[in-house]
Amino acid sequence: MKIFNAGITFPEGFSSSGLHCGLKKRKLDLALVKSDVICNASGVFTKNFVVGAPIVVCKEKLSNHKAQAILINSAVANTGNGIDGINDANLMCEYVNKYLELNIDDVLVSSTGVIGKRVDTSKVQNAAEKLVTSLSKENSNDSAKAIMTTDTFSKEYAVSEIFDGCEVKFGAMAKGSGMIEPNMGTMLGFITTDLNIKPELLDKALKLVTQVSFNRVSVDGDTSTNDMVIVLANGLANNKIIDSENEDFDKFVNVLKNICIKLAKEIARDGEGATKMITCNVKNTLNFDDANILSKAVINSSLVKTAMFGEDANWGRILSSLGGTSVVIDPSLISISYTSEYGSISVFENGHGIDFDEDKASTVLKSKEVTIDIDMNIGDECSYAWGCDLSYDYVKINGDYRS
Amino acid sequence: MKIFNAGITFPEGFSSSGLHCGLKKRKLDLALVKSDVICNASGVFTKNFVVGAPIVVCKEKLSNHKAQAILINSAVANTGNGIDGINDANLMCEYVNKYLELNIDDVLVSSTGVIGKRVDTSKVQNAAEKLVTSLSKENSNDSAKAIMTTDTFSKEYAVSEIFDGCEVKFGAMAKGSGMIEPNMGTMLGFITTDLNIKPELLDKALKLVTQVSFNRVSVDGDTSTNDMVIVLANGLANNKIIDSENEDFDKFVNVLKNICIKLAKEIARDGEGATKMITCNVKNTLNFDDANILSKAVINSSLVKTAMFGEDANWGRILSSLGGTSVVIDPSLISISYTSEYGSISVFENGHGIDFDEDKASTVLKSKEVTIDIDMNIGDECSYAWGCDLSYDYVKINGDYRS
Repeated sequence: MKIFNAGITFPEGFSSSGLHCGLKKRKLDLALVKSDVICNASGVFTKNFVVGAPIVVCKEKLSNHKAQAILINSAVANTGNGIDGINDANLMCEYVNKYLELNIDDVLVSSTGVIGKRVDTSKVQNAAEKLVTSLSKENSNDSAKAIMTTDTFSKEYAVSEIFDGCEVKFGAMAKGSGMIEPNMGTMLGFITTDLNIKPELLDKALKLVTQVSFNRVSVDGDTSTNDMVIVLANGLANNKIIDSENEDFDKFVNVLKNICIKLAKEIARDGEGATKMITCNVKNTLNFDDANILSKAVINSSLVKTAMFGEDANWGRILSSLGGTSVVIDPSLISISYTSEYGSISVFENGHGIDFDEDKASTVLKSKEVTIDIDMNIGDECSYAWGCDLSYDYVKINGDYRS
Repeated sequence: MKIFNAGITFPEGFSSSGLHCGLKKRKLDLALVKSDVICNASGVFTKNFVVGAPIVVCKEKLSNHKAQAILINSAVANTGNGIDGINDANLMCEYVNKYLELNIDDVLVSSTGVIGKRVDTSKVQNAAEKLVTSLSKENSNDSAKAIMTTDTFSKEYAVSEIFDGCEVKFGAMAKGSGMIEPNMGTMLGFITTDLNIKPELLDKALKLVTQVSFNRVSVDGDTSTNDMVIVLANGLANNKIIDSENEDFDKFVNVLKNICIKLAKEIARDGEGATKMITCNVKNTLNFDDANILSKAVINSSLVKTAMFGEDANWGRILSSLGGTSVVIDPSLISISYTSEYGSISVFENGHGIDFDEDKASTVLKSKEVTIDIDMNIGDECSYAWGCDLSYDYVKINGDYRS
């Protein structure tokens, strides 16, 4: 697999655009991604019982596993608006499709931003022609920027892999930042490819991969109402179609996993107010679910997060968060260590705190990326979760920002 | 029921003391509560799988439902120390009992503070004589102060009620602040009474009341390893013994409920870094558990907590947190309002945001006590939870303090 400095438009036949239509004061706020030909498409969506109107519209439109374009706005989530919100989402698609001239059922829509405000669809209407005419291969970063809310950097990724002798390309973009504990999707993630694959298998791969990528991130334990990840596969790479769970399917799952993990980690790294990305690896549990629950419990603990912000090797809070879940644990078997680019330090072994070098611990924790390794010593399953620290800026951003 | 400006020593036959033994730099850090006669005793303890040594020791000692004194230290939780911790806890009791001269099994021990450090028991040994000789009716505030960690004020309460023509007195103290999401107890709570009651009924009352008091508080969603609530009843009021679930038992449950709710709310109000106490009432759910889960979800949401800190009437985050639990909800039926001493404002009705007066909302939210009322409109059960906002100071306290 090769990595490229590119984004959502990297695969054959995809173009995108991003512009300012007026939903935000000054920044880019409207994006469009389009394939030249119709795509097999799959989506995963939030499991929050409160869902944005775009979620309802996309689920409906994706029931035939086909799509050709995705319209995305930031600033307003179009959530909590009842039937008006559904109408607005459909209207936005129609305004843009006036110039796209596709089957309207193949134009998806996605929104992120403040809950409970209506989208001023006239602004989308006024920008629609320019949005379509500025579609190009070169604009991927504009579209990646236009979907940002409190994100501090845009998140793009592009890779290629050989399938059936053909170079198949993949492009991706995502946004995250706050209200991030995805459950079947993250705030917004979009992946394009020119791979030729049956829609059922595209679906299966996305669901498989989501579990080990987006669903392992948490910034603040709050599952958004608008989480969605969409994959579009237009088939233009002309590889022999992947129509069974063969070697090529496995290869595709691996590439997709690489992409989704990359995006998920970027979202953790850019969590609201984050100064550090935290990875928590939990190993040797009785089963996989236990490892998932325990790693998320540590990543979500406000006390662990503030200790990481304070660069304090406070294993007591980690131990307490492990003990506070529904998972039955044996504290006397547990070991805990911290690792970063600056080294590794063990702080708790087989149920006992050890007399570690505080200076070395401080050095390890100074890194922008810290890993907490936990050995439960009771089985042979493992999992991980990604998150970030809890800083003054998280409070500032969310005391001020109406999201 | 009458309320008095007193504390843990208010009932007949109880005395207490509090002093500085050196576990903290300067502040009071060691407390003792004693009854002149042996008490019926009951305790509820943390459900965290990681528990402090005092929890293990107290559970053992309370198996006969008897106790006469409680020794409490702050600064060090005596958790994560394995068998050494158990030995230390027993040693502390012995040092103090040298001067108390009680049955050692009737001397309980409780600790709060940093996890993973040993208690310097020599400091307890050196202070033991003074701790015992300074026991008095007047010292309740010293003992309430000596159990504080990051608490900003001491928490005491005293009431009386007539049982069987006798005035029965109740005293209480508690500490809270961080790592607060009690599950069968709060960080530390102690209640004394001269009521005459059978131990089985004392036990039953405490368990009943804990569910609707301490278990409804959350400061940060982290369940402490050292939560405990102990009730001592010495019988000196000479009321006819409560030996069945009669009218007097119901009266006792009500008084105990009043005390525990008072302490629980004080803990929420004094949550680490809190500028506001938040109450979330959820009504008209299909069942009681749903109302418990939903009210806790709102109280625990970092996004709701920061919005409260920012005095922002952000109902989108409340709606999202309601939707993110396992409880099946119908957003189209929900109504949300905010109430405080400055008035009441409805912001979301029957599934729709309403065009509310932002200035009025800001005024309502300026209060130090804000209530979020949520009507799920789907059944007839209700519950509530207490918590606090999430401020810069929470991050400051927990970035610095090793707890």
